[in-house]
Amino acid sequence: MMLGEIIATGTELITGRVADFNARYAARRLHEAGLAVQRITFLGDRAPLFQEILLQGLRRSQFIIITGGLGPTEDDVTVAAAAAALNLRLFQDDGLLARIRRCLAARRIPWEERYARLAYIPEGALILDPGGMACGFALRHRDTRLYFLPGVPQEMQALFDTFVLPGLVAWAGNGAAIVQRTLRLFGITELALQEIVSALPEFHDGVTVGYYPTFPETHLTLTVQGRDREALAATLDRLTAALAREVDDVLLGPEEATLEELVGQLLREQGLTLATAESCTGGLIGHRLTNVAGSSDYFQGGVVSYSNQAKLDLLQVPAEVLASRGAVSPETARDMARGVRTAFHADLGLAVTGIAGPSGGSPAKPVGTVYIGLATPQGEDVWHYIFHGHREEIKTLSAQTALDRLRRQLKK
Amino acid sequence: MMLGEIIATGTELITGRVADFNARYAARRLHEAGLAVQRITFLGDRAPLFQEILLQGLRRSQFIIITGGLGPTEDDVTVAAAAAALNLRLFQDDGLLARIRRCLAARRIPWEERYARLAYIPEGALILDPGGMACGFALRHRDTRLYFLPGVPQEMQALFDTFVLPGLVAWAGNGAAIVQRTLRLFGITELALQEIVSALPEFHDGVTVGYYPTFPETHLTLTVQGRDREALAATLDRLTAALAREVDDVLLGPEEATLEELVGQLLREQGLTLATAESCTGGLIGHRLTNVAGSSDYFQGGVVSYSNQAKLDLLQVPAEVLASRGAVSPETARDMARGVRTAFHADLGLAVTGIAGPSGGSPAKPVGTVYIGLATPQGEDVWHYIFHGHREEIKTLSAQTALDRLRRQLKK
Repeated sequence: MMLGEIIATGTELITGRVADFNARYAARRLHEAGLAVQRITFLGDRAPLFQEILLQGLRRSQFIIITGGLGPTEDDVTVAAAAAALNLRLFQDDGLLARIRRCLAARRIPWEERYARLAYIPEGALILDPGGMACGFALRHRDTRLYFLPGVPQEMQALFDTFVLPGLVAWAGNGAAIVQRTLRLFGITELALQEIVSALPEFHDGVTVGYYPTFPETHLTLTVQGRDREALAATLDRLTAALAREVDDVLLGPEEATLEELVGQLLREQGLTLATAESCTGGLIGHRLTNVAGSSDYFQGGVVSYSNQAKLDLLQVPAEVLASRGAVSPETARDMARGVRTAFHADLGLAVTGIAGPSGGSPAKPVGTVYIGLATPQGEDVWHYIFHGHREEIKTLSAQTALDRLRRQLKK
Repeated sequence: MMLGEIIATGTELITGRVADFNARYAARRLHEAGLAVQRITFLGDRAPLFQEILLQGLRRSQFIIITGGLGPTEDDVTVAAAAAALNLRLFQDDGLLARIRRCLAARRIPWEERYARLAYIPEGALILDPGGMACGFALRHRDTRLYFLPGVPQEMQALFDTFVLPGLVAWAGNGAAIVQRTLRLFGITELALQEIVSALPEFHDGVTVGYYPTFPETHLTLTVQGRDREALAATLDRLTAALAREVDDVLLGPEEATLEELVGQLLREQGLTLATAESCTGGLIGHRLTNVAGSSDYFQGGVVSYSNQAKLDLLQVPAEVLASRGAVSPETARDMARGVRTAFHADLGLAVTGIAGPSGGSPAKPVGTVYIGLATPQGEDVWHYIFHGHREEIKTLSAQTALDRLRRQLKK
């Protein structure tokens, strides 16, 4: 197994001013690709300590990924410090210099002498050019591969995905390629998912599976390696299909689309409009639906019916239902869904009523009791849940479950 | 200046499975206290590498904080590895063993032999006992102080705040104490805040100021050190008051209370009820208000009026206003606020209408144009903003500004 390490430089990291993104991102991707990270180090901009850590890494690691310190200011010491430690001459790369001038001109940033620093790289370095402003470079020192990447997360991520991971995987696998896909699931525990996956024969060989609980969802990353990129993509399709056969209901799809985007796509495809009646979620469902650009095409709006008066006046929930069944009951959820559908002239009405806590529970209806109602032209459905957690967790689970109930209904 | 480092152990850190909390928390608190962290290292559970990093740290650092690896399982190697590296005998502490038995019994966890491991500490170690389940310990080795803390963030944080930081500050300052306070501000840039703070004579001596942009707010941490804890708290009060004289409007208060909690307190004190009419925020204001336990005492609910029809039907915005002024206009914001106040029989009506983008803008009303309306028994106010950012940022800024406008009005 190939062993490596990550060195992230920047005063903002060792003073705790910002949270690390780069090291964790690289560590996760490398782990999924079967490449082990044995150490992650955060350092400031002091050259001697950086050089010491770098030389330690050379003795111990087959790859070292260094982020940050490639900029034009005085505290960007990475390149010069690394060259000195490795006994390499720094030289100005003409192509890189011309490229920097072009980039600055395109952004209408006036040239300054300090930008010339950016064009200096150690002899033998291979420039990693993603086509944007920030470049990185790779270096081979004896048996260790070194990658120098910028500290800005988007720039680091682009270079890492384009050059570093494929390069390391090809090296480790003697020319192999790597393809990854992350799937979102909701409504299944990580343990149950692990059991299902380990029982599937398709998953027995040649695929690495990573589980990432991302409350309230579980994300699953599939990694395959081999010669032929297209064949690998086909393998991922086959694995996804095999999983879908087992857990179709809880499989939301690829990481890229959120649940509210999936719901929006289904509504748009079917030409349906939606209105929401929210009690314990307080507006969270509407907030999530409207995070999607263009949601006004299908989302009409909603009522946050926190008071009983609002349920009576705006949603036409009958007073006798509220009095005999209570605000948190299947009947009220049904009538809220029906009422909001009518009030907004929508095709579908989605309603949630429940007890988010910490107070308001009773033995018959404990904190976490939630009813979800869905009204369609064909009639109403109601679902009953008891969620566990803090107030905000119960709100999150209620909104997610309501959106997911709607998604499942639309998929039928 | 006292120099130190942090070693965080755990496979979950070097595989990127979880984001680091402990190291960043400690680094930030230490930095604010004027204690410099020169290196942060994440390691797995391999003893040799941990021992190597530990011994390097002893040569270079006056303090080392180690988190994780104190548990009862086989991969919790920290204590034994550290004792071996430092040439210290491990012994079982009877008091600690009794304490572990008591904790397990209180939680009805049956005793297992592996828990006995938890009672072994190196000779000379001082047990750090916060009264909960997890203990840590401190050790002095030549001129370096070592702190061993559990990896569970809440446990680590409690031990760090109670023992580590005060201990280091007292040591560095020859018996000094440290008191910190974080303030929330909204509606001021970090740069403008820095200028105001640096012009205040109260801030010229003896206080360290840290700026932490926490979108959409700016958080400011004040740190003072000295002999007398009560005098330090009084100093922080004086500093807070001096700042409040300059920036009263934008100073929300101490970190502990969110904006929606502040609004809730003010409504509760004044015995007022609130209803919301949300267009571009889609329910986010209601969501935030209802994150506060007990908010049903003052929050009646709201209307998410995404469609014009909802503005007409449920909020009684006159059709001629919508036709002549448009859905995004000061008149519509005013009428939405007025309408929702009436519909919910509330004392106050808060309304937001705007263009969150990315489409829907025009030269006269670009993306980011937002009107906020507030209806009270005395009449209506309307404010106009142009926010910049992505869709979700514009929603966040709109909701935050609407809640802040309400807060300012209630404070008058």
